[in-house]
Amino acid sequence: MPCPIAQFAEILGDKWSLLILRDALMGVNKFSDFARRSGIAKNILTERLARLVQHGILIRQPVRPGVERYTYELSDKGKELFPVAVAITQWSDKWVYGPGKEPTLIVDKESQQPVKTICVQAQDGRVLNLEDICYVSRARSGLDMKDK
Amino acid sequence: MPCPIAQFAEILGDKWSLLILRDALMGVNKFSDFARRSGIAKNILTERLARLVQHGILIRQPVRPGVERYTYELSDKGKELFPVAVAITQWSDKWVYGPGKEPTLIVDKESQQPVKTICVQAQDGRVLNLEDICYVSRARSGLDMKDK
Repeated sequence: MPCPIAQFAEILGDKWSLLILRDALMGVNKFSDFARRSGIAKNILTERLARLVQHGILIRQPVRPGVERYTYELSDKGKELFPVAVAITQWSDKWVYGPGKEPTLIVDKESQQPVKTICVQAQDGRVLNLEDICYVSRARSGLDMKDK
Repeated sequence: MPCPIAQFAEILGDKWSLLILRDALMGVNKFSDFARRSGIAKNILTERLARLVQHGILIRQPVRPGVERYTYELSDKGKELFPVAVAITQWSDKWVYGPGKEPTLIVDKESQQPVKTICVQAQDGRVLNLEDICYVSRARSGLDMKDK
């Protein structure tokens, strides 16, 4: 069955990959820094970084030409996991730590205020809950006609 | 290190748990339906369902009093993973399937239009990218003072 969540789970559905993604989104790009921050065993870290490179989430480049040390930078595909990471963080802040007990705040640099809570919205801005949506096969939606 | 993404990864950082969550968000609540839809081996499914119950994501109840068959319903904690699932779906739709090739559309029942693309926003509605935010320790944010 084609399923976007299964596809994501194949790429990032393990604890270590999520921790690497977290650190990459915070600007970490060196093997030693990933290792130190996440506490991942080096052989696992090597394998997971290679996997994320293979899936085009991270881009591996030599630190300098001819040098056998590398940096791992997020690609655009990787950077666009930012809303996923923020949604995960906000959920954990609320349900694991509890309101007012979150260890870290994600703050908008300009206003110095915490970012808005992520929610699902209709095109007109209405907030949608689980009960307000349905899943429509693109093939039967009529919308694919328009896009062709 | 206290970290909300690590907490989420402990609970849902494996492929099977993400597939169970996906199906639960789509209304699946029976063991046999989870097994059929996801193709998970029954021993793994049993273990993962128990884990999600233990973490308060799913609530296990007898189908009828005295019957040893159970339903697994999302708790409020589980239902609020909805924005996480939508953010994951939209990312996969764009970066794995490609625009216009997503297998399924998430549609607002009222307008019959696809939901908005999830993004991170400032309190005034500005869309924020990775570069626009910073992480502030709650202890040093000044915001905790206000909340106490």
